[in-house]
Amino acid sequence: MTTTTNSDGTTTIDAPTDLPVIRMSREFAASPAQLFRAHTEAELFVRWMGMEGSTLKMDHWDARTGGSWRYVGELGGDEYGFHGCFHTVREDRIVWTFTFEGIPDGVCLETFTFEDLGDGRTLLRADSTYESFEARDGMLSSMETGVTDSYASLDRLLAGGEI
Amino acid sequence: MTTTTNSDGTTTIDAPTDLPVIRMSREFAASPAQLFRAHTEAELFVRWMGMEGSTLKMDHWDARTGGSWRYVGELGGDEYGFHGCFHTVREDRIVWTFTFEGIPDGVCLETFTFEDLGDGRTLLRADSTYESFEARDGMLSSMETGVTDSYASLDRLLAGGEI
Repeated sequence: MTTTTNSDGTTTIDAPTDLPVIRMSREFAASPAQLFRAHTEAELFVRWMGMEGSTLKMDHWDARTGGSWRYVGELGGDEYGFHGCFHTVREDRIVWTFTFEGIPDGVCLETFTFEDLGDGRTLLRADSTYESFEARDGMLSSMETGVTDSYASLDRLLAGGEI
Repeated sequence: MTTTTNSDGTTTIDAPTDLPVIRMSREFAASPAQLFRAHTEAELFVRWMGMEGSTLKMDHWDARTGGSWRYVGELGGDEYGFHGCFHTVREDRIVWTFTFEGIPDGVCLETFTFEDLGDGRTLLRADSTYESFEARDGMLSSMETGVTDSYASLDRLLAGGEI
């Protein structure tokens, strides 16, 4: 499956048939260092992650190799918790575990990389590996709006010079 | 692939063709609580993990949800580092990330469960999810001796009343 979304940028979402992974990629008008800050500084992260109309409360955030994190999203009065640990945090690469607490024993491994394309543009890749195709496909059906909204918010923060 | 090893117990190692995972299972003459201790207490862990003739030095070990770990194995004068973070640590389930530092950007997600079989026996399951079949198959070719030796050592610690 390949989906093209967002009128400002293009988010590509691939879910191959032979691996239980989701591969997302998107260009931003930003440097790798700006995207790294957007993904590691709590006060920035809460401003772009999540569906439009949602708010995100940081419960715990220790963005270093060996650290851990938890946040709670709120949308229309409902709260959704998420947590994990940071396996790797370095300027060109973040690897973390990710659990949506509505499925407490579900967990995936996510890798984010920031590739400098020159001309002030950077390619973000976000690859998620699931333990089964069922788990992958369940996430896939619910994630697209959140991803699209989140990256549009990140675009706005970058355009506004706030990162 | 299914491999049966160890004259005392039986370690089953499955590597299915449709998922990049390795699934191990083995019974122990132990309670779930004893296997949990063997997997979380550093001073016990270093006594059973690793190939025969190797020694394991704990560099960092914080076995709690959101903690992290690193150890170095030594065999015949060569040292091998391993590290990761603990996504979940609870009595019936441990989920961690695992990197062999010889392949620095390689990482897998491992889940350990301890199922009480009654009569003083517990089934350990260790499932590892890799990002690709290539990564899975590379690990598979080198792990069997280490697994067999490690679990035989754990048997001896249990039989000796040391856990």
